[in-house]
Amino acid sequence: MTLDEKILRYEKHYRKTRAYNYALSLINFDGDTEGPKDAYEDRAEVLGTLSLEYFKHTTSQEYEQIINDLEEDYENLDEKMQRIVKLCRKNLSLLKKIPPKEYEDFSILVSKSNHVWKDAKEKGDFSIFEPYLEQVVEYQRKFAKYYGEIDGFIYNSLLDQYEEGATIAKLDKFFAVLKERIVPLLQKINSSKVVIRDAFLERECPKDKQLELGRYVAELLGFNPNHGMIKETEHPFTIGISKNDIRFTTHVYENNILSNLYSCAHEAGHAIYGQNINRDLINSILGDGASMAFHESQSRFFENIIGRSEPFISIIFSKIQELFPTQFSDVSEREFYLAANIVKPSFIRTEADELTYCLHVMLRYELEKQLIGGEIEVKDLPELWNKKMEEYLGVIPPNDRVGVLQDVHWSQGSIGYFFSYALGNAYSAQIYKAMKKDLDVDKIILSKDLSLIREWLYDHVYKYGALYPPEKLIKIATGEEFNPNYYCDYLEEKFSKIYKLKFMKLSSFFNKLFSK
Amino acid sequence: MTLDEKILRYEKHYRKTRAYNYALSLINFDGDTEGPKDAYEDRAEVLGTLSLEYFKHTTSQEYEQIINDLEEDYENLDEKMQRIVKLCRKNLSLLKKIPPKEYEDFSILVSKSNHVWKDAKEKGDFSIFEPYLEQVVEYQRKFAKYYGEIDGFIYNSLLDQYEEGATIAKLDKFFAVLKERIVPLLQKINSSKVVIRDAFLERECPKDKQLELGRYVAELLGFNPNHGMIKETEHPFTIGISKNDIRFTTHVYENNILSNLYSCAHEAGHAIYGQNINRDLINSILGDGASMAFHESQSRFFENIIGRSEPFISIIFSKIQELFPTQFSDVSEREFYLAANIVKPSFIRTEADELTYCLHVMLRYELEKQLIGGEIEVKDLPELWNKKMEEYLGVIPPNDRVGVLQDVHWSQGSIGYFFSYALGNAYSAQIYKAMKKDLDVDKIILSKDLSLIREWLYDHVYKYGALYPPEKLIKIATGEEFNPNYYCDYLEEKFSKIYKLKFMKLSSFFNKLFSK
Repeated sequence: MTLDEKILRYEKHYRKTRAYNYALSLINFDGDTEGPKDAYEDRAEVLGTLSLEYFKHTTSQEYEQIINDLEEDYENLDEKMQRIVKLCRKNLSLLKKIPPKEYEDFSILVSKSNHVWKDAKEKGDFSIFEPYLEQVVEYQRKFAKYYGEIDGFIYNSLLDQYEEGATIAKLDKFFAVLKERIVPLLQKINSSKVVIRDAFLERECPKDKQLELGRYVAELLGFNPNHGMIKETEHPFTIGISKNDIRFTTHVYENNILSNLYSCAHEAGHAIYGQNINRDLINSILGDGASMAFHESQSRFFENIIGRSEPFISIIFSKIQELFPTQFSDVSEREFYLAANIVKPSFIRTEADELTYCLHVMLRYELEKQLIGGEIEVKDLPELWNKKMEEYLGVIPPNDRVGVLQDVHWSQGSIGYFFSYALGNAYSAQIYKAMKKDLDVDKIILSKDLSLIREWLYDHVYKYGALYPPEKLIKIATGEEFNPNYYCDYLEEKFSKIYKLKFMKLSSFFNKLFSK
Repeated sequence: MTLDEKILRYEKHYRKTRAYNYALSLINFDGDTEGPKDAYEDRAEVLGTLSLEYFKHTTSQEYEQIINDLEEDYENLDEKMQRIVKLCRKNLSLLKKIPPKEYEDFSILVSKSNHVWKDAKEKGDFSIFEPYLEQVVEYQRKFAKYYGEIDGFIYNSLLDQYEEGATIAKLDKFFAVLKERIVPLLQKINSSKVVIRDAFLERECPKDKQLELGRYVAELLGFNPNHGMIKETEHPFTIGISKNDIRFTTHVYENNILSNLYSCAHEAGHAIYGQNINRDLINSILGDGASMAFHESQSRFFENIIGRSEPFISIIFSKIQELFPTQFSDVSEREFYLAANIVKPSFIRTEADELTYCLHVMLRYELEKQLIGGEIEVKDLPELWNKKMEEYLGVIPPNDRVGVLQDVHWSQGSIGYFFSYALGNAYSAQIYKAMKKDLDVDKIILSKDLSLIREWLYDHVYKYGALYPPEKLIKIATGEEFNPNYYCDYLEEKFSKIYKLKFMKLSSFFNKLFSK
């Protein structure tokens, strides 16, 4: 067989992979958005059946032969095909460690557990969800054992699936930096005399107008509605159905204008990444984000660094006043900007301010680490959750609905994902710093045409898809090794201005940390 | 292997069939409703790939063995399993006649041709669609040849796929009865002095209110929104995703209140049938309508026999006045009823009045018959279409948008379906006649609770799913052989009253035809 034939055979196999992915994603999206509630068992059965087919397809003898054949010619492959073969081999050897029946059962379980979680959350009753989450954790522990320990921890093998190379050792260090710099900053802010007016954010804004605002913001940032769509769900998310079909969801609370607005900006960030991946890579396994944290870097970039910036608020404020003429008639642009950036420890991660957000993530990372490590059990979660909330944020959730039940992830079987949000924040700040060397970002935002920003992101991030491991890509994109201090610098600079903190003191603090 | 094991193996195979059907239906539904326009090529590729998998699954050696094994034990199977085995064998031997590659190519083609048809229809330009339709017809001619002639005609093998036992001989005779009785009735109506006021039907009614009316009517008839959903498309249709998920679509024209109203009633009829099939049959190939004409009998029953009846108009008229307070303030219930039943030859089949409707169907049946028979070609269609419109209905479409391009069917690869609408009408009238022996239908409608009607339909139709061939089911449901004269009688009785035709004369006309 010639090399070209080997590659063609791989591409043919991948076309079927893509078809299964398309079907599974669409069934999930439909179920999560508008699919009839009473059909959830039908859906679970179909997801189980098709997931098993997908599993068989991606672990078949035939597929293994395709990869073997390509590996024989490894040296003759170009960089792209070499990376594909490497990732395929990795995924294949991981997948082959899971018995097919367990894979199918797990798929059926997560479809049901997601359904049950919705009900439990609605009722604020963890006990409804508990037996399902126990099973999910049991499966993930078992799977992690099948995958095998990395550096002595099975949790590492789960982390690695979302972020190639992520380990407890690296993440503990990463979170330690955040803790070391964010906690004192938070304390300074808490003792600041600055009072920010924000009660107006709770004024009733009708759902349809909020959805219009969300669409407006998403499109302003660069979301292409002809290559995707926006729907509503309890928990916002983005999903890639196919290369030209990247969808996201939002959730509207009529007495919280920022929730939907920044959900849309966040998910639009994911979708813009997905919609703009290099077309040369798009029909391969490389046609995706470099890692989940890289994906979060894009969502958090558009949500926070752009979306909560003063220039961006200034360009959307007239739209807000147009859609809600009475609600904000007594509010100035500057007041709206300050309110959108108020630091106020609260219960819900997705609604947290930029500063306390990472503390929410840290809590989840720590609980997962202990859960998979077997140090704690599912039944302990509500209590531990509330204890950590008190410790890190100084607030205790009044019920599990706004506590341990708030996130969709575990109900979908995702354990080992959460850290990506914090790491994504750190990536986004480092990318922003690099971008500012080339572009006058504020001026571009004020022009209302953000294409120069997206072009920069294309050249430094989107162009590479998943061609490189994330640690390498952040270096290529920014010219430097990953350094979480850039994120802390960004936060200090932004919030020092907002809360009028003494700059001199912070500046010396910077230097100390920069020299680390 | 024991008989139980054989049956279990069949059921396991069918579970996978169901999963593929689910995926394919949902992808199609999504593409037809809200799926991003620019993703249609992605969709076409995936539909092609999954259709091929489906094809392989339902034609595999393993599947053939399952059927062989059951056939060996045929005498020991119950009636239900015997029917299943018989239908499976029939489908299998038909499918095996199609080369897999051609099946895949055809799936890709129809996905594209459907997309192109939408564009062609929008522009009213048949030439855009023509090359695609040519390929569709070419494939269907080829497929029909593979299936083999029935009674000397390849078109019969296409008809039989939608209606077991349907042939040109039977349908020609059926349409001859309709023509013989409907055409003179239409002439009488045309010379009637009765003037029906209907201009108010074109008064602007906002889309959102019309959608609300559609939902109201569908649910009043019995559509269960927790087991389905309603969306909008250019051409309304119903699709079964799974046993608890039957969806339909409608189309709103703001200056035509009846279009959406009766689309909803029609599609709700299909959906109610699907939602209420006997639960004992639902997880098998028998968990569907008995035939496409039986499906149409249910849609046309709810649309026309119920939906356009005076009692039904009377129960929805207050809702109509509530939703459109100014539009119909000068219209009486009786006037609305008459307007909903006005006989007026027009261009669009789906909007045709009850009387001329079958003439639209006859035209399509005749063109298809000649097209598959090779007597005419695709390029001739626009001209022939318009000629027949003039001949049967006395009107000539001003453009192809309201002429040959109006229907979705051919673009989706369906040739041999259209007659089902006319046959369904005839079934529905015969079913109605039988129902009236047991129930005071008008009184039930006036009670606003139609469950007794649905229960009757369950006992006489829904309960049997596809357990019997349609010719047998109509006899079981009504106690008599199929007789199209019941439909003509129904039309004569209804329209004689509306147009004040001389009843005596018609009565003797009845007798003549009854004695046939």
